[in-house]
Amino acid sequence: MKKLTLSAGEIAEIVGGELHGSPDRIITSVAGVVDATPEQLSFVGQKRYEKQLETTKAKVLLVCRDLMNAPCDERTLIVCDNVDLAFSQILARFAEEPPEWKIGVHPSAVVDPSAKLGEGVSINANAVIEAGAEIGDGTVSGAGCYIGHDVKSGRKCLIYPNVTIMYRCVVGSLVVIHPGVVIGGDGFGFIPSAKGLVKVPQTGIVRIGDDVEIGANTTIDRARFGETLVKSNVKIDDQVMIAHNVEIGESSILVAQCGIAGSARIGRGVVLAAKSGVNGHITLGDGVKVAGTSGVVKSVPAGQIAMGTPAETQREYMSRYMLPSKFEKLSAKVAALTKELEELKAAAGK
Amino acid sequence: MKKLTLSAGEIAEIVGGELHGSPDRIITSVAGVVDATPEQLSFVGQKRYEKQLETTKAKVLLVCRDLMNAPCDERTLIVCDNVDLAFSQILARFAEEPPEWKIGVHPSAVVDPSAKLGEGVSINANAVIEAGAEIGDGTVSGAGCYIGHDVKSGRKCLIYPNVTIMYRCVVGSLVVIHPGVVIGGDGFGFIPSAKGLVKVPQTGIVRIGDDVEIGANTTIDRARFGETLVKSNVKIDDQVMIAHNVEIGESSILVAQCGIAGSARIGRGVVLAAKSGVNGHITLGDGVKVAGTSGVVKSVPAGQIAMGTPAETQREYMSRYMLPSKFEKLSAKVAALTKELEELKAAAGK
Amino acid sequence: MKKLTLSAGEIAEIVGGELHGSPDRIITSVAGVVDATPEQLSFVGQKRYEKQLETTKAKVLLVCRDLMNAPCDERTLIVCDNVDLAFSQILARFAEEPPEWKIGVHPSAVVDPSAKLGEGVSINANAVIEAGAEIGDGTVSGAGCYIGHDVKSGRKCLIYPNVTIMYRCVVGSLVVIHPGVVIGGDGFGFIPSAKGLVKVPQTGIVRIGDDVEIGANTTIDRARFGETLVKSNVKIDDQVMIAHNVEIGESSILVAQCGIAGSARIGRGVVLAAKSGVNGHITLGDGVKVAGTSGVVKSVPAGQIAMGTPAETQREYMSRYMLPSKFEKLSAKVAALTKELEELKAAAGK
Repeated sequence: MKKLTLSAGEIAEIVGGELHGSPDRIITSVAGVVDATPEQLSFVGQKRYEKQLETTKAKVLLVCRDLMNAPCDERTLIVCDNVDLAFSQILARFAEEPPEWKIGVHPSAVVDPSAKLGEGVSINANAVIEAGAEIGDGTVSGAGCYIGHDVKSGRKCLIYPNVTIMYRCVVGSLVVIHPGVVIGGDGFGFIPSAKGLVKVPQTGIVRIGDDVEIGANTTIDRARFGETLVKSNVKIDDQVMIAHNVEIGESSILVAQCGIAGSARIGRGVVLAAKSGVNGHITLGDGVKVAGTSGVVKSVPAGQIAMGTPAETQREYMSRYMLPSKFEKLSAKVAALTKELEELKAAAGK
Repeated sequence: MKKLTLSAGEIAEIVGGELHGSPDRIITSVAGVVDATPEQLSFVGQKRYEKQLETTKAKVLLVCRDLMNAPCDERTLIVCDNVDLAFSQILARFAEEPPEWKIGVHPSAVVDPSAKLGEGVSINANAVIEAGAEIGDGTVSGAGCYIGHDVKSGRKCLIYPNVTIMYRCVVGSLVVIHPGVVIGGDGFGFIPSAKGLVKVPQTGIVRIGDDVEIGANTTIDRARFGETLVKSNVKIDDQVMIAHNVEIGESSILVAQCGIAGSARIGRGVVLAAKSGVNGHITLGDGVKVAGTSGVVKSVPAGQIAMGTPAETQREYMSRYMLPSKFEKLSAKVAALTKELEELKAAAGK
Repeated sequence: MKKLTLSAGEIAEIVGGELHGSPDRIITSVAGVVDATPEQLSFVGQKRYEKQLETTKAKVLLVCRDLMNAPCDERTLIVCDNVDLAFSQILARFAEEPPEWKIGVHPSAVVDPSAKLGEGVSINANAVIEAGAEIGDGTVSGAGCYIGHDVKSGRKCLIYPNVTIMYRCVVGSLVVIHPGVVIGGDGFGFIPSAKGLVKVPQTGIVRIGDDVEIGANTTIDRARFGETLVKSNVKIDDQVMIAHNVEIGESSILVAQCGIAGSARIGRGVVLAAKSGVNGHITLGDGVKVAGTSGVVKSVPAGQIAMGTPAETQREYMSRYMLPSKFEKLSAKVAALTKELEELKAAAGK
């Protein structure tokens, strides 16, 4: 981290927070609440972590509004509406900059003469840019990355090392693509025949909107025809699999190791939690949330939560989840009934 | 897509289909049934999607035999036995060709003098071919790919950019390997000891048959000894994990993100749906189908369907799945019994 | 395999095993018990595989102590305390050596002048070493791998081809990193705002201890701040996902396709079986075992086994698993009760 000191008062001003306690306490870096030393800014963002306020060694903390009445004699609390955002602001002050990517074409890069390079691009060592590719102004092509024939990328993208973008795919502006990502591998389609499985040609492309982020080793397959479409502001974690002809709406979040089968349509603002899966040819409405590891097999209306495999509504899922305890109660009831019946039979002298 | 016009009559002839409605309607490209415009050929391949025939804007459609009696005044229907195959045939006519891979060795590629290159190979920019490797006639080694020591590849393979094939592994002919695939990483084996976990040497190889396709970022580990074996015509999707000493029979299909643990034996024509897993040291008979996300923990006889985790037969799985509703019915029955018993006791004057 | 012959007597001596049967039988290679020919050494490591002793063609076998009384007329048995370890010892004798990685810097590699290379390093074709990186003595950087700015690696690491290690990350000594691994991609953090999802800067690093192994295409993300930490002797399989700020204790085992969400703390000697997942911000105590495909959503005390999704104790899990059969029994009981009640009512003349 950078060498820097900030007082609690300065921090409150930077983040627009409400100061509870001394403004003079000084911090020299930042840390999580468990590890923080007295010289480190930390945070407690949710009421349910309140206890951590008692045990932390941190002397200056960002806290959520629910914790505004916590004691502030021994430590200074800065109450914020959005603790995450506030902490990120201070973190950014301490963070060392990422490396600078040198502008220009590294002599070891292989750039086809027909490729069009925008202004201020950085084409790094051993990158390969094929014929007809277009790289927008200010875009970085990391070391060893492969930009296929006629690929188009927008402005100010960060294409990290060892990324592969296959022919004709289109990437918007301000897109961040982490190492090992593959865009435009063939969709998976085979038809049984007398000669075994025969490949269905995958003739379409992948189109990525603006301001998208794609995590390490994620794969997005080209369409059978037309486009596999990832709209703007979508955020994709590592090792996510997006099959051919999938469409993903704006600002959706795909967490690590989730997968979406062919031709599924995912709405805006959808969250697919880690390791979840979505069947092909179904639709998830805007704002749908899918719990981690769930397998969604039929379409889900906008705004709903889907849980379990096959995924159900939260109510159905909980009902299924509670079965063992409900079963125990019913068993006890049946045992009681049996006993009563025995007694009744005995009383009837039978 | 290529510029091209086809009449319904011409299409029926190409695919060998039965024309219902005017042969003169003209299409200029192809699309899915939801997105198609009146100038685009589309298709409805299953009876259960019949409703789409009413709402689509397409005027020329390939349909399955079950839909042969659908109205054909406003649109021309071409009835086919295999709609998928027929559509692929027309799609292929409109599809732009993939890029051509230039024959020869790119000057930036690093090819060991002892490597043997077949006729008509295409070794692309920054590819690395190690000592003793053999590349068959007409095979493409994409940019940045790594072909290890003594690796052998057959004829007419497409090894896409940034693929890694480690030493001594063997690849058949007509194999397609998508970007980011790793063949021949070490199998995962460690033995607990006083000094911690100690590596078990992984001394075998991976052998891939003919006409296999391997999706982006899939990994296939080398055997502890002997071979990890993927037989001919197997089709593997993206991000599949095949552990050491696994054997996969001909024409099996491994869908995205599935995984197979060490020494499992998978028969011919098996389908592992997305995200499914197979335990080590078990056998899946020919034609077994494993449902998506299922975890198979014991061997499955030929022809069976395995569902759930731990995977069961379809009947067992459905019985488990229906438990909540069956439980509700039993609860109601117990409540009724309880009431009757109370009445009986009351009547008995107890 | 190497050409070599060993007698049963020699093998018993090498592994320190107890010879049952003739010491003169000769083997010329090794194989699994199902495939072994009479000239191949094989093994049966667990009592439950005893039947394989009757059907195998192998004439010399390593067996566990539980099988010491098996018949040894037709085959020689060598009884060992640790069959796996013993077999590995013999296997190592037959195994061909992996390729030698040439010491020095390949002319096609791109090494920044400010990078510090230790003695005896092997920097292979098209590898890229950025400014400020330090490569320890005897470490191999495979073809096409990317070692980012200010990355530090210890001694005698094997960094295989096409690995990516991003800026400032730190790798210990004797670490093996398989192809396609990405260390130091950004952690996944975004905050909703009026302008859509806004990135949380990921300013920390990844730190890998000594003697760690990392399987093909695994991804380990850099911390939001501070470190994502993989301690010494941890063994990681292929396609594992480790999110930002996770900490993994010594000698833990992470099997293929498992994933750990942000800030989770994994103890020493933990086993995460294949495809399991661990929620963010929870703690798994030392020695915890998580069953394959399980999803752990809350902290697990040291030594426990967690199974299912959401993960429970083994007892809870089994209770849930047995529900269908328990339900059938309860149903039968209720049916019997109903019948008795009917009879009672009839007898009461009601």
